[in-house]
Amino acid sequence: MMYALIVCNGSIIDYSFYRKFFDEADFIVCADGGALHLQRLGIKPDVLLGDFDSIESEHLEYYMKQNVEILKFPAEKDMTDTELAVNTAIDRGYKNIVIIGGTGTRLDHTLSNIFLLKLMLDRGVKGRIINEYNEMFLINDSTEIEAEDGCYLTLLPLTSKVEGITTEGLYYPLRGEAIEMGSTRGVSNCFVEKKARISITSGILIAIKTRE
Amino acid sequence: MMYALIVCNGSIIDYSFYRKFFDEADFIVCADGGALHLQRLGIKPDVLLGDFDSIESEHLEYYMKQNVEILKFPAEKDMTDTELAVNTAIDRGYKNIVIIGGTGTRLDHTLSNIFLLKLMLDRGVKGRIINEYNEMFLINDSTEIEAEDGCYLTLLPLTSKVEGITTEGLYYPLRGEAIEMGSTRGVSNCFVEKKARISITSGILIAIKTRE
Repeated sequence: MMYALIVCNGSIIDYSFYRKFFDEADFIVCADGGALHLQRLGIKPDVLLGDFDSIESEHLEYYMKQNVEILKFPAEKDMTDTELAVNTAIDRGYKNIVIIGGTGTRLDHTLSNIFLLKLMLDRGVKGRIINEYNEMFLINDSTEIEAEDGCYLTLLPLTSKVEGITTEGLYYPLRGEAIEMGSTRGVSNCFVEKKARISITSGILIAIKTRE
Repeated sequence: MMYALIVCNGSIIDYSFYRKFFDEADFIVCADGGALHLQRLGIKPDVLLGDFDSIESEHLEYYMKQNVEILKFPAEKDMTDTELAVNTAIDRGYKNIVIIGGTGTRLDHTLSNIFLLKLMLDRGVKGRIINEYNEMFLINDSTEIEAEDGCYLTLLPLTSKVEGITTEGLYYPLRGEAIEMGSTRGVSNCFVEKKARISITSGILIAIKTRE
């Protein structure tokens, strides 16, 4: 799968966990302070962007010397660096986007990145937010999700209601039922087959594959 | 303000930060594994509830001996322990609820707790999720928010669109504008007065007061 990898400024604890995403990515966009993570990994992005309020000046200079494409935006802008990075990846033709460093103690950034998945969906792009414990993506029709050892699957409505939810391969099945936003019914389901199949008839679900 | 305090199983790093919420709370509900936090604080809840899959048996026995009201639910239930705790607080008449220990590495629990704020709003209850870095609540009409040193204010649509957003007391003002879910426009605003005033004409905003 061809995908663009966006590296943000949020929490990254176990760098080794993220290596495979760099190996598999076709295009790497570094959003501002995400440069710290790339420096630690010794990885050069294809594009470095932001208002550069969160990047060390030595990192910026290093990437300038390395001829990394640099896109500087004004500080008083109407978008986060992550939204700018998403737009850049979409403009370059990517239909799959993985965001790392997109979660952390700043829950406003974590949440705004999760809602960016909706913006991507509206533009026909499959987005994923991944950290050491969680993989998040949206479902608006039908999809298969691979089971992983020790992982739970949570399904939460992102719209006021999600209708016609049918699941296969999960311990607690749903059979065409509706769930409203706020219900915790879809939290911590378990895989009982190698793949789960989820389909819905209306609305949008957030799917979260998670481990303790 | 009379409020019920719900203590969940999520991350609590700085126990001293949470003391004031126990001092101010009129009713304390412990959701299952949240008992670990209460043990460390030496605080006895009014109600302890859950399926007790996450609580140490010695903690459970301790509270039984202390005559804490204990509500045991089956493990195969359709709600998280936090939703059960919210329902219990509402059933006992509380119109204000604060959730602590409601965030952490398990983003499925963090998110389902955030969406529970919507369920509370639908039932006329003001909910807040608070941790060391963030305070989250919903806005569906107009409200005042007190500034705090070093805090940003983020406003994110929880509905597909939020219309007629007007703000006062913030560095980047909004004047009756609409924001759609997915837009990051409302991230990281700054207080320029002692209080911010936010009003909207339709939809629901998530407000997050956050610090680095």
